Amino acid sequence: MAEPFELIGFRYSVYTRIVRIALIETGTDASYLEVDPFSDSPALERFTPLGLVPVLRHGDFTLTETAAILRYLARVTGTDRLMPRDPRALARMEQVMGVADTSLYWPLVRQVFSHGFFAPQMGEPYDPEQVTAGLEAGRNGLRLLDGIAEEGLVLRGDAMTLADLHLAPMIDYFTRVAAGAEMLASHPALSAWWSGMAGSPLLLASEPFPDVPRP
Amino acid sequence: MAEPFELIGFRYSVYTRIVRIALIETGTDASYLEVDPFSDSPALERFTPLGLVPVLRHGDFTLTETAAILRYLARVTGTDRLMPRDPRALARMEQVMGVADTSLYWPLVRQVFSHGFFAPQMGEPYDPEQVTAGLEAGRNGLRLLDGIAEEGLVLRGDAMTLADLHLAPMIDYFTRVAAGAEMLASHPALSAWWSGMAGSPLLLASEPFPDVPRP
Repeated sequence: MAEPFELIGFRYSVYTRIVRIALIETGTDASYLEVDPFSDSPALERFTPLGLVPVLRHGDFTLTETAAILRYLARVTGTDRLMPRDPRALARMEQVMGVADTSLYWPLVRQVFSHGFFAPQMGEPYDPEQVTAGLEAGRNGLRLLDGIAEEGLVLRGDAMTLADLHLAPMIDYFTRVAAGAEMLASHPALSAWWSGMAGSPLLLASEPFPDVPRP
Repeated sequence: MAEPFELIGFRYSVYTRIVRIALIETGTDASYLEVDPFSDSPALERFTPLGLVPVLRHGDFTLTETAAILRYLARVTGTDRLMPRDPRALARMEQVMGVADTSLYWPLVRQVFSHGFFAPQMGEPYDPEQVTAGLEAGRNGLRLLDGIAEEGLVLRGDAMTLADLHLAPMIDYFTRVAAGAEMLASHPALSAWWSGMAGSPLLLASEPFPDVPRP
């Protein structure tokens, strides 16, 4: 398909960053349109009734939901190595993406990162109790992923899948807060996975805060 | 794989029901273990750190996340017809499942259904304002799905996919509240899809409230 790709996103959005690194990893050129969903929802509603980023356009095909976008990119670019062939490994990949969306995004990103790093950095109002609440709410999801990393079907050092791409930006944000980095360190298999991912060129090329030191 | 399947679920859980109808549709025999996640989380934590139903076991392989379970069932049973071959139709299927999880489950099920049907039916405390809030919060997701049904790649009358299985129990619960049924009726393409699904043997065979009339 020679139709052009366009990513509509917001620079600080963890989901936009997931699609950005998936575009890099699948070797896909895409134009980029920046829209802040918090301040310019009318611009976004031209593409999606939900008013959420990211949106991927491929010719006249408009797609939302990051996990669906990642699979679509892997399929149309023929990047099969990002989706394991073994049914159990593939199911684990999908489970990790689901757990990230439904059990980790809110506590790790919207509670710990937003109130422990983003808002203070931006001089916006924040609530330190949200950091504590997010650490507690994210605990069981991290424990589950630690078991999955230990099992070794996905979240391995030697074979990246869509699960790595989906999870890495969330863990990257989470560990910018010292208490988040500490909590991650208490999960040995997940920490080992993260130590391999943390310096990935994918993450460096998509760094949203190039001038801010990590804890 | 001749290993036995086991579903761990809760009879009123909309996600448990999604897996139940997927087991029927894929022709999979599974034993069933009932666990109420609200009252017996220790029993559930033997299977999942998140304490959420459903959990599917296949031999010694334990899987959570309903969307991952549905794909796993379709793959290991060879029920390929439930996953379209066309990459855009397949992406739409995955988008519908994602929208259902992230934008519809809470407002339609945990707000409208729980407070407009379940709690009153069970004599439990409830807050009618949650029904109003859920209708409002679910509006944009329903509009998105109405557009998808109108486009016709998935949510069609003539070819069921995993998106139908994932969405139907949520819409079934939502429309047990009169205001939910009314709101659905204002979305013509989604209503047309639902009118074909509503009497499906899959839904009848998994009816959680056989003795309670619908509105």
